[in-house]
Amino acid sequence: MNPHPPFSEAEREAVYRAIAERRDVRRGFLDVPLPDELIQRLLTAAHSAPSVGLMQPSRFIVIRDRSIREAVRRIFEEANRRAADGYSAEQSEQYCRLKLEGIIEAPQNLCVLCDARSARGHGLGRQTMPETAVYSTVCAIQNLWLAARSEAVGVGWVSILDPTEVCKLLNIPDHLTLVAYLCLGYVEGFASEPDLERFRWEKRVDLTAVVSYDRYSEERTL
Amino acid sequence: MNPHPPFSEAEREAVYRAIAERRDVRRGFLDVPLPDELIQRLLTAAHSAPSVGLMQPSRFIVIRDRSIREAVRRIFEEANRRAADGYSAEQSEQYCRLKLEGIIEAPQNLCVLCDARSARGHGLGRQTMPETAVYSTVCAIQNLWLAARSEAVGVGWVSILDPTEVCKLLNIPDHLTLVAYLCLGYVEGFASEPDLERFRWEKRVDLTAVVSYDRYSEERTL
Repeated sequence: MNPHPPFSEAEREAVYRAIAERRDVRRGFLDVPLPDELIQRLLTAAHSAPSVGLMQPSRFIVIRDRSIREAVRRIFEEANRRAADGYSAEQSEQYCRLKLEGIIEAPQNLCVLCDARSARGHGLGRQTMPETAVYSTVCAIQNLWLAARSEAVGVGWVSILDPTEVCKLLNIPDHLTLVAYLCLGYVEGFASEPDLERFRWEKRVDLTAVVSYDRYSEERTL
Repeated sequence: MNPHPPFSEAEREAVYRAIAERRDVRRGFLDVPLPDELIQRLLTAAHSAPSVGLMQPSRFIVIRDRSIREAVRRIFEEANRRAADGYSAEQSEQYCRLKLEGIIEAPQNLCVLCDARSARGHGLGRQTMPETAVYSTVCAIQNLWLAARSEAVGVGWVSILDPTEVCKLLNIPDHLTLVAYLCLGYVEGFASEPDLERFRWEKRVDLTAVVSYDRYSEERTL
């Protein structure tokens, strides 16, 4: 049952290091394409994620074509303009100063989809919580994100997009759910804090504020 | 901008090892409680996950009380009976032989919630894709899962539960979403293949079947 030796302390530290130093990267992408083997390693990491009933619903589109990325960028710009308009004058100004995507600067983008209709896994685990199909795909994304950090590859998740527009552009059939649109590439470096904290949009909260024991309790309003 | 040296090859290998050797564990939990410091390290890993607009919507309930776990187990049994009834006679028999949870055997359970109504992050990134709040919480779960693997702690995700019943039991307010119910504990060991593959419920598919380039394509039916 146990063909694997325990992780050494150094191995354990490396896992925690990837988790602690992972960032959502939107700036500083280098104009150097990622080698194919590296992209395959990242996709293998994603594909190794848990999936409900072993249904393996995640689908990946590696996008390197510049004209496609330019079209996605236009979809972002439209959504970003609308988002900015939703804030008060002062907050909108602060919002517009934030850099929220690297669609063109990153030489490769990755669109991550979920085929929640797949019969694989024979529905196991999805009777009471069918949303676990899409959650499986999110687990795949986080695997890829951590593997990428260990390879010095920055990943940025762009959610300021109309998913219907992106699906039309990439010929994605209706029955698939667009879960994430990611920008991937080598970067100048990784910041110590989240960008949104560095630029004073939001602060990190203490762990103690989000944990309770045996039953739910919330000590203070988050 | 880059206070961090690159990962060494050994560090990179450790990250890939955690990803490859992580399993969804439902059997072989040891009756040995996890030390508090270890639980805090796992929760810190979860809390370090990316979150849309830095909204940090994830909430955690560490459950050690046995009577609560017994009540959750009864909620599982009811949902599991219904799920078994949904299969043909032959498949139902195979289903009933599977071990799908370790709620009592694992000395601690973890209920993971998302407060998708939280104002933190000021809605950034959630105008077009509000589902990214819940996705942030799933990223937290995958962080915890990999950290746990490096600590030789098994994690099993139980989705065969009526989430409304669990929320009632744990005093969880209506505005929170139950994302996952996990069993956590030291284990006899980690299997080389997913349980559902070992017991011939489903097979793993090749990576090539789930990847396309520049636009969506599906070579064969998955």
